[in-house]
Amino acid sequence: MTPEEFRAAGHQLIDWIAGYLEGVEQFPVTAPVQPGDIAALLPTHPPTATDGWDAVQADLDRVVVPGLTHWQHPSFFAYFPSNTSYSSILGELAAAGLGVNGMLWATSPAATEIETVMLDWMAELLGLPERFRSTGTGGGVIQATASEATLSAVLAARERATGGAGNRTGTLGNLVAYSSAQAHSSIEKGLRIAGIGSENLRLIPTDEAFALRPDALAAAIAADRAAGRVPFLVVAAVGSTSSMAVDPVAAIGAICRSEGLWLHVDAAMAGIAALCPEHRALLDGLELADSFCTNPHKWMTINFDCDLFWVADRAPLIGALSILPEYLRTAAAETGAVIDYRDWGIPLGRKFRALKLWFTLRLDGVASIQAMIRRHVELTDWVAAQVAADERFELAAPPCLNLVCLRHVAGDAATDALINDANATGEALFTRTVLDGRSVLRFVVGARTTEARHVEAGWALLGRLAPPA
Amino acid sequence: MTPEEFRAAGHQLIDWIAGYLEGVEQFPVTAPVQPGDIAALLPTHPPTATDGWDAVQADLDRVVVPGLTHWQHPSFFAYFPSNTSYSSILGELAAAGLGVNGMLWATSPAATEIETVMLDWMAELLGLPERFRSTGTGGGVIQATASEATLSAVLAARERATGGAGNRTGTLGNLVAYSSAQAHSSIEKGLRIAGIGSENLRLIPTDEAFALRPDALAAAIAADRAAGRVPFLVVAAVGSTSSMAVDPVAAIGAICRSEGLWLHVDAAMAGIAALCPEHRALLDGLELADSFCTNPHKWMTINFDCDLFWVADRAPLIGALSILPEYLRTAAAETGAVIDYRDWGIPLGRKFRALKLWFTLRLDGVASIQAMIRRHVELTDWVAAQVAADERFELAAPPCLNLVCLRHVAGDAATDALINDANATGEALFTRTVLDGRSVLRFVVGARTTEARHVEAGWALLGRLAPPA
Repeated sequence: MTPEEFRAAGHQLIDWIAGYLEGVEQFPVTAPVQPGDIAALLPTHPPTATDGWDAVQADLDRVVVPGLTHWQHPSFFAYFPSNTSYSSILGELAAAGLGVNGMLWATSPAATEIETVMLDWMAELLGLPERFRSTGTGGGVIQATASEATLSAVLAARERATGGAGNRTGTLGNLVAYSSAQAHSSIEKGLRIAGIGSENLRLIPTDEAFALRPDALAAAIAADRAAGRVPFLVVAAVGSTSSMAVDPVAAIGAICRSEGLWLHVDAAMAGIAALCPEHRALLDGLELADSFCTNPHKWMTINFDCDLFWVADRAPLIGALSILPEYLRTAAAETGAVIDYRDWGIPLGRKFRALKLWFTLRLDGVASIQAMIRRHVELTDWVAAQVAADERFELAAPPCLNLVCLRHVAGDAATDALINDANATGEALFTRTVLDGRSVLRFVVGARTTEARHVEAGWALLGRLAPPA
Repeated sequence: MTPEEFRAAGHQLIDWIAGYLEGVEQFPVTAPVQPGDIAALLPTHPPTATDGWDAVQADLDRVVVPGLTHWQHPSFFAYFPSNTSYSSILGELAAAGLGVNGMLWATSPAATEIETVMLDWMAELLGLPERFRSTGTGGGVIQATASEATLSAVLAARERATGGAGNRTGTLGNLVAYSSAQAHSSIEKGLRIAGIGSENLRLIPTDEAFALRPDALAAAIAADRAAGRVPFLVVAAVGSTSSMAVDPVAAIGAICRSEGLWLHVDAAMAGIAALCPEHRALLDGLELADSFCTNPHKWMTINFDCDLFWVADRAPLIGALSILPEYLRTAAAETGAVIDYRDWGIPLGRKFRALKLWFTLRLDGVASIQAMIRRHVELTDWVAAQVAADERFELAAPPCLNLVCLRHVAGDAATDALINDANATGEALFTRTVLDGRSVLRFVVGARTTEARHVEAGWALLGRLAPPA
């Protein structure tokens, strides 16, 4: 493809994307396709001749769009939001066009320095404690996902707890981690990956709001110590995946301080709400945490991937993840004056992800994101009020931020059927979870363009399909 | 940003990218900036008002470009290529615009199915053994980086060797892995992360071409078995990072088969050369491997991130990485008829990376990539011939594919000074490594637009700066 062809095709693709996003409401939220349907539209063997752009763009409409779950659809109420702004798309495009690798400061100083500034800006916008700023012993980094942030926290905590032995000899055996029984699957996955093992994760009982009980945590730590094991890490959820439960970070942090445990706070979705001062109480106690993550690629209109991960002390993180072969040595790094972000995560190569944060904060501004968050929360409150007022439904957990967990009073079969029937219409998409052993419909309000009419239609759909109480 | 503003700004950014890539030769290859220079150009605090697009685009020229190492510069001879085509930039843009998350088949069937087809296409184009196709017990996945592919191989191998105990109890202690002393740092990093520990990695001596010696591998395995340890994994390099050494995969594979060890073949850069049939002998013996990776984001003009990772048996990989909480259960997955790629890697969330492969294979075609690879290899051969003919220089390793390792005959100080002096001109960029304890200048030919004149100028620069023999 020549530069001239790129200009022409690029303009067309920009227009196509604008058209897709403006028109996404016309599509069923999820594709009514069967396994293999999309693959069957592609040739079995790779092409031996080239296509023109027109054919490729046509296949976006013919092959791709009919096979999508439209995460940008305003009636996407499933999983978690992954909302995308036009400005962040431009940031991703600029990064792809520049094609630099920011693995080291020296391999593109601007990629590293703009990332550091963006993490400090975001710390300020979220009201994070000073200890997470790059100007002290801490600092932040963009990781791809919260799963990788959690794994990084596990590794940094292991490094601190073992004095580096976990990296050297790998004979860990007696380390034990703690999270609530509602915490995300990435915690168990991270402990598995790190060789600590799922049997060494204690799932601590929760209270009636599905938040971790500090008394039960303290008891579990004491029991493990009595058995000769080594408690080393607590992962607290600010916004659990199933029900947006908020673990009591301050109380957990006090236990971690007195017991010498690493505290990682996973606020992948909910943490973004702290952009609004009225929601900042979510992060009470964060000054006691050793690490924290939240995902602009969920609720801040930055396209995937963009997880922000902060540590209060970068030394154990770098100790866990830095290896310096000859071919990566640079004069700049040896002075200690720069950050090499390859030492802050799992991958070596790194793309210029800070651009999309920079573009969005400048072009859209935080005020527009705050307005979106407030609109989502207000619409969610409306849904919760409808649930409370309809005798067929009940709340399955306290509503929080942009999530309502509800169930049909007739029981699991009715709730499951309602989810399936609603999703089959293509008019909206909801996800199922289980709380207290019972089926739950999660109603998440989070697409960038979701307005009252979409939420009202989603609720009307449920009301139309639900059997009597 | 409104759709109309996006269209206008997007067109401008497309044109800006074409201009940047066409004009990149005008810039010094690496930015002559000091630590903090770029950060100083940004406000300390986040903006409270919004900027227009013009200001943001102007900052690409004012702030970003002067702070880059230009990986797309035709005189970038450093590290490894990370070359980028216009068509892959469009693929990345389309993925950002669609904004879907392909973590599960159900969360966007097209993202999963096109990825599977692309991996099968690439297996065919690279001439991989049948066992890596998705139609049997194996299959491929796009991961972000080779580091993550290596970690995934470590985890799958651990799963097979321990019958899942590594995931459950984490008491691994006696597992031992092997690679050549020249293999990439990601192997040690992966073993550290996985809790196996760097002390349980044996760095096997290499021959005069820096390739792993199978006899030494067999002896190391025997010694570990005799000591009661459990050998479980060999990582063979097809194209080592320092000198592009090719480990003898067939001989290593025979040992792994008879000893029951997992064989992972890391061909991150060199594997792409197998697109050209005349280079396919690089992969001799691959039918004995359990997993394999190569990076289109290095030498196949696909922008970062795009690592392809194949396994011959997907069961241990999924066993190592799958966790199924209620909120991720889907009917499609429970039938077993679909792939959920979240179970094939570290992260849960996944972007639609298959689009950039699809776009590039259709718009540019494999023939144009083969032609680029052949041009790079031919220019590299020319450099090697110049080194051999100049009494001031000597080859530090056998030239291979697109890499020449050379040194000044006067010794390390002369070689180091030559690298520093050449890089300081901004006319080209080279990387230093160490082989046999001595300094080496790596001359890598790999940018998409590198032509004979750039390589000739790079060589002339070295000739001009080098002192007499």
